[in-house]
Amino acid sequence: MLTLPHIGVLPSGPLNAISDVAGVTVGHATLAQDSIQTGVTVIRPHTGDPFRDKVPAAAVVFNGFGKSIGLVQVQELGVLETPIALTNTLSVGAVATGQIISAIAANPGIGRTDPTVNPLVFECNDGYLNDIQAMAVTAEHYRQALDSAAAEFSQGAVGAGRGMSSFDLKGGIGSASRYATIGGQQYCVGALVLANFGKLPALTLAGQRVGAQLLALNKPDSATPEMGSIIMIIATDAPLDARQLGRLATRCGIGLARTGSIYGHGSGDLALAFSTAQTVPYRPLEPVRHSSSLQDNLLDPLFEAVADSTEQAIVNALFAAETVTGRDGHQRQSLYDMAAGQTI
Amino acid sequence: MLTLPHIGVLPSGPLNAISDVAGVTVGHATLAQDSIQTGVTVIRPHTGDPFRDKVPAAAVVFNGFGKSIGLVQVQELGVLETPIALTNTLSVGAVATGQIISAIAANPGIGRTDPTVNPLVFECNDGYLNDIQAMAVTAEHYRQALDSAAAEFSQGAVGAGRGMSSFDLKGGIGSASRYATIGGQQYCVGALVLANFGKLPALTLAGQRVGAQLLALNKPDSATPEMGSIIMIIATDAPLDARQLGRLATRCGIGLARTGSIYGHGSGDLALAFSTAQTVPYRPLEPVRHSSSLQDNLLDPLFEAVADSTEQAIVNALFAAETVTGRDGHQRQSLYDMAAGQTI
Amino acid sequence: MLTLPHIGVLPSGPLNAISDVAGVTVGHATLAQDSIQTGVTVIRPHTGDPFRDKVPAAAVVFNGFGKSIGLVQVQELGVLETPIALTNTLSVGAVATGQIISAIAANPGIGRTDPTVNPLVFECNDGYLNDIQAMAVTAEHYRQALDSAAAEFSQGAVGAGRGMSSFDLKGGIGSASRYATIGGQQYCVGALVLANFGKLPALTLAGQRVGAQLLALNKPDSATPEMGSIIMIIATDAPLDARQLGRLATRCGIGLARTGSIYGHGSGDLALAFSTAQTVPYRPLEPVRHSSSLQDNLLDPLFEAVADSTEQAIVNALFAAETVTGRDGHQRQSLYDMAAGQTI
Amino acid sequence: MLTLPHIGVLPSGPLNAISDVAGVTVGHATLAQDSIQTGVTVIRPHTGDPFRDKVPAAAVVFNGFGKSIGLVQVQELGVLETPIALTNTLSVGAVATGQIISAIAANPGIGRTDPTVNPLVFECNDGYLNDIQAMAVTAEHYRQALDSAAAEFSQGAVGAGRGMSSFDLKGGIGSASRYATIGGQQYCVGALVLANFGKLPALTLAGQRVGAQLLALNKPDSATPEMGSIIMIIATDAPLDARQLGRLATRCGIGLARTGSIYGHGSGDLALAFSTAQTVPYRPLEPVRHSSSLQDNLLDPLFEAVADSTEQAIVNALFAAETVTGRDGHQRQSLYDMAAGQTI
Repeated sequence: MLTLPHIGVLPSGPLNAISDVAGVTVGHATLAQDSIQTGVTVIRPHTGDPFRDKVPAAAVVFNGFGKSIGLVQVQELGVLETPIALTNTLSVGAVATGQIISAIAANPGIGRTDPTVNPLVFECNDGYLNDIQAMAVTAEHYRQALDSAAAEFSQGAVGAGRGMSSFDLKGGIGSASRYATIGGQQYCVGALVLANFGKLPALTLAGQRVGAQLLALNKPDSATPEMGSIIMIIATDAPLDARQLGRLATRCGIGLARTGSIYGHGSGDLALAFSTAQTVPYRPLEPVRHSSSLQDNLLDPLFEAVADSTEQAIVNALFAAETVTGRDGHQRQSLYDMAAGQTI
Repeated sequence: MLTLPHIGVLPSGPLNAISDVAGVTVGHATLAQDSIQTGVTVIRPHTGDPFRDKVPAAAVVFNGFGKSIGLVQVQELGVLETPIALTNTLSVGAVATGQIISAIAANPGIGRTDPTVNPLVFECNDGYLNDIQAMAVTAEHYRQALDSAAAEFSQGAVGAGRGMSSFDLKGGIGSASRYATIGGQQYCVGALVLANFGKLPALTLAGQRVGAQLLALNKPDSATPEMGSIIMIIATDAPLDARQLGRLATRCGIGLARTGSIYGHGSGDLALAFSTAQTVPYRPLEPVRHSSSLQDNLLDPLFEAVADSTEQAIVNALFAAETVTGRDGHQRQSLYDMAAGQTI
Repeated sequence: MLTLPHIGVLPSGPLNAISDVAGVTVGHATLAQDSIQTGVTVIRPHTGDPFRDKVPAAAVVFNGFGKSIGLVQVQELGVLETPIALTNTLSVGAVATGQIISAIAANPGIGRTDPTVNPLVFECNDGYLNDIQAMAVTAEHYRQALDSAAAEFSQGAVGAGRGMSSFDLKGGIGSASRYATIGGQQYCVGALVLANFGKLPALTLAGQRVGAQLLALNKPDSATPEMGSIIMIIATDAPLDARQLGRLATRCGIGLARTGSIYGHGSGDLALAFSTAQTVPYRPLEPVRHSSSLQDNLLDPLFEAVADSTEQAIVNALFAAETVTGRDGHQRQSLYDMAAGQTI
Repeated sequence: MLTLPHIGVLPSGPLNAISDVAGVTVGHATLAQDSIQTGVTVIRPHTGDPFRDKVPAAAVVFNGFGKSIGLVQVQELGVLETPIALTNTLSVGAVATGQIISAIAANPGIGRTDPTVNPLVFECNDGYLNDIQAMAVTAEHYRQALDSAAAEFSQGAVGAGRGMSSFDLKGGIGSASRYATIGGQQYCVGALVLANFGKLPALTLAGQRVGAQLLALNKPDSATPEMGSIIMIIATDAPLDARQLGRLATRCGIGLARTGSIYGHGSGDLALAFSTAQTVPYRPLEPVRHSSSLQDNLLDPLFEAVADSTEQAIVNALFAAETVTGRDGHQRQSLYDMAAGQTI
């Protein structure tokens, strides 16, 4: 019997999810009918409007076989200004359009009296289970996901994770959190992943390479070569600037590596980290902005929290996902189903 | 009277356009009715299907206030695999979807038996003349622009350039070419820009700061702050790999600087360079690829050609664009109209 | 007769030098005997010890044919912690060692109870005038340059600039400053360059391509191919974080481009910008740092000041440098000497 | 009893060292007397002169708290042109000078008729065991290490590894190799690390977190905070260009992560990969270079080989290093000594 391990030595928050970072909420729109097995997941960085109150952010690319939109501006300005959206590869355009529509509805000056808005959409390829060519996701699904955002949310085969595969098993949405203590102050780090990467023989749970054992006992349904990806989103309430958030995002690659990933050629492996401690107002009243940030030489506990919560979020995605059958009868077994009744 | 200067000392090709690079074609879809003044411009790197025969490419960001899609993968793999599309900021999603539809039509295995396709769309904000919130551009306009691609094409207020402003004047599409000789061999460098940047006082033509003179004689219609951008595309038939093409793209910033740009905060200033000398097959027959590239220490003539053709393309955009009236009666005068009858 | 132009429309400070930024000082050690024509130039960011009070900084590489040391850590941590040193290419090691010796003398805990120190040395190749293989610069010369740092300092063929060539003319050290006003507050931007780049035909002064005219009238001594470089250092008293300083450093490329550079293949073209408005203490008393920074959407005046002061500093280097004869009788004429008695 | 694990499933070469890549050799100069516990390690990419026959290379920075020299040019030109040197942090200047002296001796035109040479020196801080302020390493030690380079070489507390610590244990030099098969052809990947990072509780051997167990049984000598670093060098005989070598170097971070690293704040974690399959001649006879490179979609076996050989090299460093006593009686126990007689 496989049991869900706790990664590392840091404690998790009450939800063990990205929403343990106060104000962060997550919503899904799930499309699950016959050959359409896909969706949208939205992460809201706070309960307000991120176009008006932007949050410091930075992204890192581990392997750039990916079609995300929005990273150029995040890197230049060090802020995000929309909720973060996740979806399938061919629906980035539709979801970006959805983000723009929502932003204009709330801020009618966009593109007129105000600058335009920078959509921020990440993607993985769910084409094994989902008829990705159908491009079934619409701007309206973004709206649904946005409207359903809450601190408590489902994991596994939901939202953007509906059709995703990981380690030749059913993958999808996973989340986790860790507390780190710096200078006597406790900070929360939350991770949310869209897991769609990996080959079964490499699957490693808390250091144990269980994939090879599972493979010996099973025959996964895996006709296609790996065309995976993983998106890793980090939220924290620690006060950090964009440069420091880039340092945090870099540590997502550690958690990912520990699960058995080699950042495969065909995998778009990206991370983005944001901080909720301070916002950057859209129309500042003063020319000078005052802000706070942790001293760089104190960041190691946060680095550990990022690595551990990312690894935990991946593991949680595998444990949360149910078996799904989709396009052309393709099926991805859940980890539970594959491991059922077997001693590993 | 202003006369169109020839930038630098290198000769231009017969068309003095990006299509002097053999095989490169350009097409437009132009929307010009009342408050809708926008469009799509497409650059085809060769006459075939770039998904099947990819071309080496690299992009450089001078100022990342921009919403382009596709750069992450170009940087990782060093190739582009769709035609290059230009449009307005809020239409990137629609045009990316158009690119995907076209690619799937030609390659039904995309997202099924084959990897997904990486759309490549650049944008500028034409919101001063165009009702950008109307999101009037559709996937179908991408198709129209693609289908109309030819070696001879219009410049100025056409395609994606229809609603663009530059130096408080009418901007838009400009193109130019230069020949550089290396090792006795002549290579062609072509530039195409979507010019939507700059404030009039800084306008510099072939080193002469004419903007201040024009400003003294005129009163441009410019209620809004600069929310500009410029996209600079370089084509060459010189054999170069992606790293070298990145070196070329970097020199676009030189041509841009010489026209009076300061890479303004709100301007998305990006360049992409590609080479037509060799293609990278989608399904290679052999595991090892054989290729050719110029020695790095011989690249200076190409660097000069990139700088000069970029500057020339910007100048050509200004000289080609006609006066356009759009949203809310906003008008951008053409450089010709503003300079008419004045000695500068 | 050539007259020294004022670049752009912004006013310069009283010294028209980087030391118009309060607290910034510059010192030289000059070696000028026979075939040894080289030296060291040091820029102190403030009057204290930058190891104890680090300053925010960021660097940008326009063309990386260069051998500088220290950039990796500046990019990661966003601060510099030694004075900035400039020297010839083969003396980077000796000068870095000199920086370490000075830092240890002031901070005996370095490498024992404290972290090590990050030397920061930039270089250009002065091998045309200087017998660079002699490696005549020592750690002691760094000390001399450091000790001589003052707000008033020489320009031209002094310090690291002693043996440098630019546009086939005598190059070297140049400096300039500009004031920019943001939100009613005046900020100072200072530039210092080590100019060792360019070919005469491309020389452009305030937009006028005078190089070709000079070439028609003269025959410069230029047996060797260009193996140039330029280092551009920007200081400002505006409150900016490292990400924003990177945006400023990027605009050095604009000033460089306007003088006729194509960022040649063999040229190491680098820029670094730092802010004196705030320091980052080595041993912080509190885990959270409070800081100020200008709003990003107000930075354009600083961008203009960087572009203009960089261009002005290059021009000033050319006007300040005297004719120098060095190794093997090689001679670089000053711009004044070459232009003497000629109407350009 | 701890036994040396074999990481992953790929086979190693006969030496299980970086020198399994044909032509690659390694030499050490070791200084081990009282408080001087340091040295130099040199990796020669081939038996010739890399200034004349450069090799494709690329570097990646995981955490930039480091003082290496040479990366700027490697990134721009995609080649290295000296042997790779490793030493302690404060000796980078001396070793770079040693590289320059050696290069000039072999190529008297450097800095005269030829361009200058780009030294390439990486470092870690061995200040716990070594009196790093003594700066005992000289240019001559570089020469000694270079002259002693051979396919068979020592690992552990030798050369640059003499004074290094890792996981509060004795660290130093480790090496390993793996074979990967692509298109029926076997390629060799070799790794060499200078391991000076990590805290004992996090030490993970082949997935097993043994550090916590060791800590429960022992009390390591570790008064100082972590001021670590790791340098990871990858050699391969697979034909790859610089962009692809950057993709390989990125996978070093995977092997590092799996040993328990969090890329700590104070750790300079860098990787460089080079290919021996082709050289880039210093004075090319033809303007166009012809080269070969593996198709990108076939690189996964090399990625796996890089991750596994890096992890193995770190493990090998720990198993090879002997207990060393140095400055002020500081001692680092070897892993063997600490684990002796204990069941883990």
